Amino acid sequence: MSYYAKPIARLIDELSKLPGIGPKTAQRLTYHILKLSRERVKKLAEALLDVKDSIIYCSVCGNFTEKDPCDICENPYREKGVIMVVEEPKDVVAIEKTREYRGLYHVLHGALSPLEGIGPDDIRIKELLGRVGQGVKEVILATNSDVEGEATALYIAKLLKPMGVKVTRIAHGIPMGGDLDYADEVTLSKALEGRREIG
Amino acid sequence: MSYYAKPIARLIDELSKLPGIGPKTAQRLTYHILKLSRERVKKLAEALLDVKDSIIYCSVCGNFTEKDPCDICENPYREKGVIMVVEEPKDVVAIEKTREYRGLYHVLHGALSPLEGIGPDDIRIKELLGRVGQGVKEVILATNSDVEGEATALYIAKLLKPMGVKVTRIAHGIPMGGDLDYADEVTLSKALEGRREIG
Repeated sequence: MSYYAKPIARLIDELSKLPGIGPKTAQRLTYHILKLSRERVKKLAEALLDVKDSIIYCSVCGNFTEKDPCDICENPYREKGVIMVVEEPKDVVAIEKTREYRGLYHVLHGALSPLEGIGPDDIRIKELLGRVGQGVKEVILATNSDVEGEATALYIAKLLKPMGVKVTRIAHGIPMGGDLDYADEVTLSKALEGRREIG
Repeated sequence: MSYYAKPIARLIDELSKLPGIGPKTAQRLTYHILKLSRERVKKLAEALLDVKDSIIYCSVCGNFTEKDPCDICENPYREKGVIMVVEEPKDVVAIEKTREYRGLYHVLHGALSPLEGIGPDDIRIKELLGRVGQGVKEVILATNSDVEGEATALYIAKLLKPMGVKVTRIAHGIPMGGDLDYADEVTLSKALEGRREIG
């Protein structure tokens, strides 16, 4: 027997399927939603459907977009000679927020993971190779620095090298504002390895 | 300038308005939703609207219900002579889960809070008084044990006492499985005060 009326149980169930939302949070959210005006709930439901109906993948870079090609790929002020390779669309947002990067992107939608059965054909590597050559001077590999991200960067670097394009990897090291003694050994040795002259 | 396409920004914004969901979580959820099938997103949106459209307040106890009066108020096997007073509908679920309580409920939809301008007329106290007298033998006050909940319990107890009904307050003490030295002083003194003979 459920302690909830059916529509309540159903919403709790649907919300629990979202990442990072356990049954307790789903219940709290549901009871909050029950107290909202119908107007507010309708806006939320519409925003959910609208995002699915109007957002597509850019056929060039693979990022989420309303129109194809996306604003970044179409922007005449972006450097067409540089492509940054990232795993997910949210990584594009993270880089854009730095306001430091003016090149283009390529979203892989994943990383190589033999354990999860994700091979080169399951992420957008072929599409990347298709873009390189057309005046592309540098490919920056900005996949995550976990095992899968490192393996993916290495794999792509090996494919691109023979094509005569400069391939770089974003730097790893101590996060800004981070204490040295809080960094793990791998990060510390990467930081040492990547040291540069100053002053 | 937003780093997101408009429909994405809108969903992040709507999700951020929910309790306990900050901008970072809202972004993570939005990018997860973008990767779901339209079918799944539609089910979530429908569950949201359905919960608003089909759930009403029980005119007797004030709990959320699909039909009025609710299943608990209508259940012939529940003890009609006992009413447990709680602040919110979710408290009813918490008590029901114990499977220990067979009486009825009364949901106040809030607690007295002079600071937030919530007075006796803003919560369902009048409705409670209207129910007492019709064969009700005991009213159990199960409001929260914070300042507002305690004040609300005290206020209701004073109103009910002259009506010749037994008024009780749920016990406060050390949570089961809880270490004594992790309990705060108020809880500890409540636990001492409520001590009972055993063995």
